[in-house]
Amino acid sequence: MRKHMMMVLLLVAAVLTALTAQAVGENQNRVDSVQTQAKPKYVFMFIGDGMSHVQINAAQILKGSSEKGNLSLKPLTFTEFPALGLQTTYDATSFCPDSASTATSLSSGYKTHSGTIGLGIDKQVVGQTIAEQLKEQKGWKVGLVSTVTLNHATPAAYYAHVPSRNNYYDIGVQMVESGFDYFGGGAISKAEDGGRTSIYTLLERAGYLVTDNKQQILNLTSASGKVYAQNPRLQDSGSMPYAMDMNEMDVSLAQFVEKGIDVLDNPEGFFMMVESGKIDWACHANDAAAEIYDLLAFDQAIAVALDFAKIHPEETLIVVTGDHETGGMTIGYAGTGYNTAFDILYNQKLSYIAFDEKFTKLQKENPNLRFEQALSMVAADFGLVAPGETAANKALVLSALEYSKLEAAFKQAMLPSKQRDGGDQAYLLYGGYNPFSVTLTHILNNKAGIGWTSYSHTGTPVGVYAYGSGSELFAGSYDNTDVYAKLKQLTGIV
Amino acid sequence: MRKHMMMVLLLVAAVLTALTAQAVGENQNRVDSVQTQAKPKYVFMFIGDGMSHVQINAAQILKGSSEKGNLSLKPLTFTEFPALGLQTTYDATSFCPDSASTATSLSSGYKTHSGTIGLGIDKQVVGQTIAEQLKEQKGWKVGLVSTVTLNHATPAAYYAHVPSRNNYYDIGVQMVESGFDYFGGGAISKAEDGGRTSIYTLLERAGYLVTDNKQQILNLTSASGKVYAQNPRLQDSGSMPYAMDMNEMDVSLAQFVEKGIDVLDNPEGFFMMVESGKIDWACHANDAAAEIYDLLAFDQAIAVALDFAKIHPEETLIVVTGDHETGGMTIGYAGTGYNTAFDILYNQKLSYIAFDEKFTKLQKENPNLRFEQALSMVAADFGLVAPGETAANKALVLSALEYSKLEAAFKQAMLPSKQRDGGDQAYLLYGGYNPFSVTLTHILNNKAGIGWTSYSHTGTPVGVYAYGSGSELFAGSYDNTDVYAKLKQLTGIV
Repeated sequence: MRKHMMMVLLLVAAVLTALTAQAVGENQNRVDSVQTQAKPKYVFMFIGDGMSHVQINAAQILKGSSEKGNLSLKPLTFTEFPALGLQTTYDATSFCPDSASTATSLSSGYKTHSGTIGLGIDKQVVGQTIAEQLKEQKGWKVGLVSTVTLNHATPAAYYAHVPSRNNYYDIGVQMVESGFDYFGGGAISKAEDGGRTSIYTLLERAGYLVTDNKQQILNLTSASGKVYAQNPRLQDSGSMPYAMDMNEMDVSLAQFVEKGIDVLDNPEGFFMMVESGKIDWACHANDAAAEIYDLLAFDQAIAVALDFAKIHPEETLIVVTGDHETGGMTIGYAGTGYNTAFDILYNQKLSYIAFDEKFTKLQKENPNLRFEQALSMVAADFGLVAPGETAANKALVLSALEYSKLEAAFKQAMLPSKQRDGGDQAYLLYGGYNPFSVTLTHILNNKAGIGWTSYSHTGTPVGVYAYGSGSELFAGSYDNTDVYAKLKQLTGIV
Repeated sequence: MRKHMMMVLLLVAAVLTALTAQAVGENQNRVDSVQTQAKPKYVFMFIGDGMSHVQINAAQILKGSSEKGNLSLKPLTFTEFPALGLQTTYDATSFCPDSASTATSLSSGYKTHSGTIGLGIDKQVVGQTIAEQLKEQKGWKVGLVSTVTLNHATPAAYYAHVPSRNNYYDIGVQMVESGFDYFGGGAISKAEDGGRTSIYTLLERAGYLVTDNKQQILNLTSASGKVYAQNPRLQDSGSMPYAMDMNEMDVSLAQFVEKGIDVLDNPEGFFMMVESGKIDWACHANDAAAEIYDLLAFDQAIAVALDFAKIHPEETLIVVTGDHETGGMTIGYAGTGYNTAFDILYNQKLSYIAFDEKFTKLQKENPNLRFEQALSMVAADFGLVAPGETAANKALVLSALEYSKLEAAFKQAMLPSKQRDGGDQAYLLYGGYNPFSVTLTHILNNKAGIGWTSYSHTGTPVGVYAYGSGSELFAGSYDNTDVYAKLKQLTGIV
């Protein structure tokens, strides 16, 4: 018996040695070629449209700037995620790519033309999206949430296959045909295009509960069936209002994610894509405050997913990334050198688009509006005052140069669109936006130490932040098409 | 006996189950808390001053743009490194930090004021630098290489402890006292300050071989003793020439690293810090071509370290990072929208500083120089031609707006410095640089689709790329002070 015991103990020792050697080997190779046995069945894909490192760090700085003069940087929920990656974003057409093509790369793993959704360079179908595959092959439920319209480029790239992102009605039809289980956030662009049957009607015919009633949305459960939940109030182009323009009538992005979990939760698994689409829109308009508050609201929505992940730690994966950078945003500006003062942004009370609406109303009421009259609105909504006047923060007093730039912009804004300066210099200054509001955000942003170089997308790589089951696969440098490949590998799609 | 066997088998099963559970646990936590047994003894620290993701991706795009119209992105040596990190760069004074304070954080693990080197916020000594510790505690040899002067902020932060980065002579004295084994690259700033004994003389008295002879530099070996090797030709402020201004008389950064390895190689180990300092200077001046070519030369120097690492795979660690971003560089510009055309940069034949020298010489020879005359130099060195003229690439024809901006800058440049416009707008346009050359790089960069927002540093986080022994420790998000902590952990410094 001792002999046998001896043999068994030797066997145990051999097994231990082998396992230890294997562990050391794994340790050495963990970064080079990540192996994972993870099999997540609850996958969250968060896309901050137009969000790169500068946008994220700006949010961290503003979050830490609540006390004036305090130089601290407060991490966001997702910047503390364990796995960090970096993805290149160029598409088949440009290094400053489009949201349609980049979302296609993220959802489906291939490059295509700017403006194309779910089709290859030759405008032919290449394959299904990760959401379509998970639904078809694994029986997962699928949810799509966006602060912009649900047939806008990014959500559309998870179910649509169209040559142009502008084919909103066709995309809407494919949304209905997708049979996905939950749509939440903004409206449907051109839902009744050309007198054709409303996409909302098609959704109802297909058995969807369509609602824009806040209480009904908050009461959604896994027994609600398929749902299209739309925020009660809409802002520009059918989008949800900017976070800084929201009030108690609105459903927050975090609430849309919370209700999405309630609707989708089932034993087979689910995939939920959540887009913060107006980070991009605010960056196009060079409005840092609107952008940062939407990014912070996005982070709160991610925190909801994290709460779910903590209840299902072995089965949940959260991936957070951007599709490209927008605006050429920088933390630092020639006029402020090495200084920043993000607390100045607290003086902005509403987004550029909400200000545009107020300003346009004032113009209509008073076609002979003088610059001096408009300045009282500027003081109320941006805190900025004319040279020589006093302000709580002297940084809010306009310099002579800023005052002259603002006055020139006001004069342009008072002209009918077609009579405005259409030259190169005017485009560099205003980018096709309302000259008055874009000059106001430029001035306030510059005073805070924020610069912009563009009204379009730019070509910096964007970060990837991952948490949970299989998250280690998202560490390192790769291309946006690899995000799809990694999700495919983890979920066992063939 | 069967009973005993059964019990033993159950024991084996229990052990296996426990080990498997442990392995799964490790798998999940591998990114959370990286454990490593790595003990590198050859450590390379590469710092691209002013280098963040935009600078790196711009180099990848230019590298892929050799064929006109070709939309490809060629990876660099270090962008393919397995471990990727992201470090925040703010210092005790600013979110747009200084090179003195950020280099102190990287070398010594604590935050300090902009402008301070190797001292805490109270200007008192906090501790030794990683290089000092490795030399003292482990007997490693130490080498410092920089394209700028060797008592400039970044290299100084590895051996000096001074309240101001401008105390060049004091820093020089501490350089001699450091006893480090190899200094290579640029000159010594203010080596003979105020008639005091030259730092070069002090180095020779301390036993250093001081040479700026190319052949002597290329003949250096581990038998050469302590060395200060200076490039035969110097450009602005005692720096090595920009890579694009170099010729066969110069020693490349890659060669300085190669010779550094030859001098430092010994059985105990070595630490080599290599700074590409003029990536920063070119970005301050908003000169993309000069910046990108220096970054590509930096990458070639990293490739030399990688060749060494492949010979000593278990013992070598290479870390590549930046200290902060400079210039608010963006790939994308309002005037070019979604287009880029990096091949346009190939028309620039020399750096802005080399052009400044040529232009200043021309001005001296011809004080009544007319704009039209200067344009022939512009065509030769930047490829740009006046409206209506023909160029090989029509994108090189100046628009009316660009022509008027360049003419205004020329007029400013023809004035003695003190008579130039000193107003806010002039600063935004020229940033204190020669108005003519900075306007030329702005125009050429903008045509290529590159924007700039600042002449100072900015606050975006910067990437960290690591290869080799212990590299997995550099994956993820952290602060710049953690770079020191990670090096300390890996090298066993107490």
